[in-house]
Amino acid sequence: MAKERIILGIDPGTNIMGYGLIIQKGNKISLITLGILKLGNYDTHALKLKKIFERTLGLIEEYKPDEMALEAPFFGKNVQSMLKLGRAQGVAMAAGLYKDLPIFEYSPKKIKQAITGNGNASKEQVAAMLKNLVEFDTTPKYLDATDGLAAAVCHYFQGDNVKTGKSYSGWGSFLKDNPDRKV
Amino acid sequence: MAKERIILGIDPGTNIMGYGLIIQKGNKISLITLGILKLGNYDTHALKLKKIFERTLGLIEEYKPDEMALEAPFFGKNVQSMLKLGRAQGVAMAAGLYKDLPIFEYSPKKIKQAITGNGNASKEQVAAMLKNLVEFDTTPKYLDATDGLAAAVCHYFQGDNVKTGKSYSGWGSFLKDNPDRKV
Repeated sequence: MAKERIILGIDPGTNIMGYGLIIQKGNKISLITLGILKLGNYDTHALKLKKIFERTLGLIEEYKPDEMALEAPFFGKNVQSMLKLGRAQGVAMAAGLYKDLPIFEYSPKKIKQAITGNGNASKEQVAAMLKNLVEFDTTPKYLDATDGLAAAVCHYFQGDNVKTGKSYSGWGSFLKDNPDRKV
Repeated sequence: MAKERIILGIDPGTNIMGYGLIIQKGNKISLITLGILKLGNYDTHALKLKKIFERTLGLIEEYKPDEMALEAPFFGKNVQSMLKLGRAQGVAMAAGLYKDLPIFEYSPKKIKQAITGNGNASKEQVAAMLKNLVEFDTTPKYLDATDGLAAAVCHYFQGDNVKTGKSYSGWGSFLKDNPDRKV
């Protein structure tokens, strides 16, 4: 594990994208920034995707993270919502892939488990624990920002284990072996 | 409608991406190129997405199309396949969005209808009609390449109608009003 690294966490949704950046120095992590991109005001689906791509690319260019962690639900209500979500994830991932960032994905349950010890924790519980972990004292207006941050912190908690997550030979076998993280 | 324009057609899948480029001069269209990107040899899902993004970006940079047309199925077998397909579409779209290309989407049925007059035509029928339309005499090894080309030709056939497809206020209303094309 690198002694110092920056992790970008993203929670790409079709209405709001949340993001958080943390820096790890030795065994300590601290917050660089967190925020949200509101997508509701953009008229078209294409414009929303464009904004997700641009913001993600902008964050990478500004903060030069070493790794990217994604909150990536595996299952949705229906095929339509999954197609939209997949596109939102796809454009966010494209920005990371374009910049040669290793990308790691975690299910919401895995993230909650990693942050609070409880895979069914509420958003508020996750946010409260994050406040202790990375020492920020402002309550984010939107909890989605902490969802992005939570993905970054969850990735930090994986430690050296993350290295094992990158050599799977395919989506299917990876999902089977590692239902909480697919790359 | 511009007197001369280049259209990039993409059929982004998770195993094969097909693409075709046509140039319109007045009322005539002709083929620039068509091809496929085989994704089966890439080990990880992330690598596949990266290759889709890179190839799409490369095609845009090399041929400088004015517009991009996407074959975009709306419904799949299950939520998992739709998430994967959404991601493949998302990264292809990200390349277009990054380069400020207008993106148009057509369902497979709409594309078949536009090319052959029959929304249930076979891939072979579509390919045969495309051969007449854009005058190429080699049989592509993979019909997926002609699927990408078909999206481009379908977009050409929309003519001035395409302008009306870009002002919808949201995914839902657009789908409702225009089930075959969403932007």
